[in-house]
Amino acid sequence: MLKLYGFAVSNYYNMVKLVLLEKGLAFEEVTVYATQSEAFLGISPRGKVPVLGTEQGCLSETSAILDYLEDCGAGKALLPEEPFARAQVRALMREIELYIELPARLGYPQAFFATRIGEETKARCRAELLAGVAALKRHGRFAPYVAGDGYSLADIYFLYSVDLACGVAKKLFELDLLADFPAAAELLARLKQNPHVQRIAADRDAAMPAFLAMLQAKAKG
Amino acid sequence: MLKLYGFAVSNYYNMVKLVLLEKGLAFEEVTVYATQSEAFLGISPRGKVPVLGTEQGCLSETSAILDYLEDCGAGKALLPEEPFARAQVRALMREIELYIELPARLGYPQAFFATRIGEETKARCRAELLAGVAALKRHGRFAPYVAGDGYSLADIYFLYSVDLACGVAKKLFELDLLADFPAAAELLARLKQNPHVQRIAADRDAAMPAFLAMLQAKAKG
Repeated sequence: MLKLYGFAVSNYYNMVKLVLLEKGLAFEEVTVYATQSEAFLGISPRGKVPVLGTEQGCLSETSAILDYLEDCGAGKALLPEEPFARAQVRALMREIELYIELPARLGYPQAFFATRIGEETKARCRAELLAGVAALKRHGRFAPYVAGDGYSLADIYFLYSVDLACGVAKKLFELDLLADFPAAAELLARLKQNPHVQRIAADRDAAMPAFLAMLQAKAKG
Repeated sequence: MLKLYGFAVSNYYNMVKLVLLEKGLAFEEVTVYATQSEAFLGISPRGKVPVLGTEQGCLSETSAILDYLEDCGAGKALLPEEPFARAQVRALMREIELYIELPARLGYPQAFFATRIGEETKARCRAELLAGVAALKRHGRFAPYVAGDGYSLADIYFLYSVDLACGVAKKLFELDLLADFPAAAELLARLKQNPHVQRIAADRDAAMPAFLAMLQAKAKG
């Protein structure tokens, strides 16, 4: 059976978990935090979660895992068959990751862990988030899904990256990233109605106290 | 005919150009610098190069373009057919991009454009580059290619990202990133013997003066 390594508070972990649930694939969750221990580096070369354990070995990097699950062909398809449409979904996934998820991460320490970030980093976080959301508004179709009328991997990146980016913008800048982007706000609300998404949110909430305790223990050294 | 938009000094542009040449596909190069002009944002949602012009429209994001060319199926295949092997190539591409290319970019201003970067950024650039190269050493096969015995997209990311990262490490830290990684140094030297790679390097050198003049004009406002 497939094994999903990581922890339920990680949004990348939850992207893979949602795809597994949407495809109806059997999998076992193995809770492990991202560390630079030799043991963990043995299954994840840069010490990142998630990792997918397969019969052939371990796979790291969310987008590579998602492409792998798609290539295996079991369950609901989350990428269009036609190459150009498929490429547009992939471009949207990448744009969400590089221009929304990564800038949002600059703000995580202050938004979620009460660690102040420098003014330069904060300014970069804000400017890049705004530019990233503008790019999504330019490229996304939202008809009603990110890439058009089909539910795809772009929606899964959108759900887990944009929601967290909105949290960062709200906490750091009192800014509503989707204020003039109602189609995105509606899609986010619609995706949150999905029962698999609700199960993942409940699992995340249940896992939060253990995650925070781990961080505290780490901070104390 | 396919159109490749961008400029010959960009390493992402050169990744796509090399893939087009390796596959033997006909294409036309259209020189355009990355800007935030409305015209350019119309073909590239975040104003980045390269962009591939196809009969169906424009495609942005290097990895989406490379997957598209692969999905179209013309010319030499640069991804294995078998899903797990394919996923390992994709994971290596992503690891090179996220953990070597992106940290190296933190150092570009100082390494290539005589603009000093902050000490914090510089320290992060160094630490992340070392960790990224260690991850590649852990995961790469180098037998003799990055993912094993087959030449793949992972080699093309490796060539254009690792070579530039080595330049950054040398200039900023007087550090040879591949000092204790001879298999990588040998592969880099071998890839540079490829006639398409040599043509791309010559085109880059020829384009450099115009690129630097553009930067100077921009700096003067």
